Amino acid sequence: MTTETGASERELRVLERIERARRRRPKVREERVTLAHGAGGKASQTLVEAVFVDAFRDPRLAELADGATLEVGAERMVLTTDSYVISPLFFPGGDIGDLAVNGTVNDLAVCGARPLYLSAGFILEEGFPIDDLRRVAASMAAAAARAGVAVVTGDTKVVQRGKGDGCYVNTAGVGVLERADALGAAAVRPGDAVLVSGPIGEHGVTIMLARGELDIEADLRSDTAPLHEPIAALLDAGGVRMLRDATRGGVATVLNEMARAAETGIVVDEDAVPVRPVVNGACELLGIDPLYVACEGRFVAVVDGARADAALAALRAHPLGESAAVVGRVVDDPPGLVLLRTSFGGTRVVDMLVGDPLPRIC
Amino acid sequence: MTTETGASERELRVLERIERARRRRPKVREERVTLAHGAGGKASQTLVEAVFVDAFRDPRLAELADGATLEVGAERMVLTTDSYVISPLFFPGGDIGDLAVNGTVNDLAVCGARPLYLSAGFILEEGFPIDDLRRVAASMAAAAARAGVAVVTGDTKVVQRGKGDGCYVNTAGVGVLERADALGAAAVRPGDAVLVSGPIGEHGVTIMLARGELDIEADLRSDTAPLHEPIAALLDAGGVRMLRDATRGGVATVLNEMARAAETGIVVDEDAVPVRPVVNGACELLGIDPLYVACEGRFVAVVDGARADAALAALRAHPLGESAAVVGRVVDDPPGLVLLRTSFGGTRVVDMLVGDPLPRIC
Repeated sequence: MTTETGASERELRVLERIERARRRRPKVREERVTLAHGAGGKASQTLVEAVFVDAFRDPRLAELADGATLEVGAERMVLTTDSYVISPLFFPGGDIGDLAVNGTVNDLAVCGARPLYLSAGFILEEGFPIDDLRRVAASMAAAAARAGVAVVTGDTKVVQRGKGDGCYVNTAGVGVLERADALGAAAVRPGDAVLVSGPIGEHGVTIMLARGELDIEADLRSDTAPLHEPIAALLDAGGVRMLRDATRGGVATVLNEMARAAETGIVVDEDAVPVRPVVNGACELLGIDPLYVACEGRFVAVVDGARADAALAALRAHPLGESAAVVGRVVDDPPGLVLLRTSFGGTRVVDMLVGDPLPRIC
Repeated sequence: MTTETGASERELRVLERIERARRRRPKVREERVTLAHGAGGKASQTLVEAVFVDAFRDPRLAELADGATLEVGAERMVLTTDSYVISPLFFPGGDIGDLAVNGTVNDLAVCGARPLYLSAGFILEEGFPIDDLRRVAASMAAAAARAGVAVVTGDTKVVQRGKGDGCYVNTAGVGVLERADALGAAAVRPGDAVLVSGPIGEHGVTIMLARGELDIEADLRSDTAPLHEPIAALLDAGGVRMLRDATRGGVATVLNEMARAAETGIVVDEDAVPVRPVVNGACELLGIDPLYVACEGRFVAVVDGARADAALAALRAHPLGESAAVVGRVVDDPPGLVLLRTSFGGTRVVDMLVGDPLPRIC
């Protein structure tokens, strides 16, 4: 529905939110960039709102979604980008190459788009082994083939020794919107169900262990995977309101972003959240909550409460969704907050990630 | 024109070139990445062919053009990407922010596309001043407004102190192909004229002087500028065969890429190449040839020889093309080589850039 000025109701709502944000004028208190600004949590959001949204003034950017929906001629498409600075570059279950492909494929998929094309930008440090670069490129090619996308254009820059950290990769992705689903915060309403597509935290804990900072050996691999197929299955089942992949900041941060954007509450049942025992154990030793640990092959979905069973069945029919679970529901109050019903029967507020317990996880 | 298999003649030619390249199997002789691999010259091309083209096997990538032409539903569009690692971040005439916008706008424009949307990916070093980040974002916003594009999506990563160099920026760009012009090496033929859109080398020399490594003061500013308008004017004049912006590796490298891709020779008249005296002077002191120095607001055009005057007039009518010049012509022999008629009446082969006299120029 559009008004006489040509703006849709949704755009007007978003513009209104920008205006409110401008009045609120989020401020970066720090004078310098900290690791927390890159952690995907509260500090990241403040930085993006105070610096980038303020500078670029684009309603698509202000939505803080995983990608932007665009019109190119007669088509609707999605553009997204992510840089990957993970350390170490190679880890159990994957490497920076497949992460860079899967991450961008997933950002397109959660926007409802069919992923089509990727660009690849490399920033290499002088002295980086060519064989490692070949290995990264081969992983990217294999991941692209698996996800049905083509890497069609690229760029390579080299910085002097000591001015980089081996290899950083940026991917941007283009997908086409072929479905009519209006996904996004505006579609979310009280009574909706909240699903998680699989066991959480495996990527983040794997990276932590791969750094060798803990004397733990565990049979754990990154969950990095392309999610376009289980997401397509879910969309086919119908009733989907909003999707986000749970990367930096973990499921807790994604739920907060959803609650905040939709101006609703979300109540989560701690016991319903799928976490493998080995992840739980490692998180206890690390003193972190698995709800804040990054996944690279899991997403959070808000679906029509009346269709939650069908949605769950559709997800579970795909290998990448076989452990999917309904973990909570959308409520009226308190707007913008996420509440956790703990295993002990209590209720507490779950905030966005604050600080950065696990830097350079992706 | 398409064959029974659905591939166009152009695609077949490109596939043939990939096959030839595979048989030739370009090899990276070095075991580790060097600065020359990022300089945009011969080493860059070998790295891209030996590692990325070999891994991704996509005909669009193998063209080694400034962007890839794609089909999204009913529309034809171009996707391109570039990372910016310039040092220093701020310099006379611009900074990393407007460079990152203009560079990607120009890559779209030389592919014949109307630039529409950009993504922005930031890799920040812990400790980078927030005020500098604001300044970069403000430049990007101003450059985007000037070029008529919107920055619609982004990403921010932070790496630990000492693992980056302040601020790296990646932009990817999407443009729409609205014209029927089939630009590219396949359109180039003997008798075509070669044009340069303005005085060369100003960006590269400005950066060199800004580093303070030379005790020269000169009234020189980067030529960074969006080229979509002069390029549109040129395309309107008709007869355009191929366009490239002359960034890393300079005009000499671009001419070599064109000659190699088109399998023709190019003869350039040294005296016809526009170079400001201050650039010539600085290059003499630096011991480098202005033909290899990066521009960020100049392009090389191959146009139908019979329409060269009209093309030149169209370019000169725009402020960013007012010093444009016809600098040479396309010839049959020797295929793949660029010959320079020097001021002294001699003729010599001009190769691609070898090594890297000016690292991190963009």
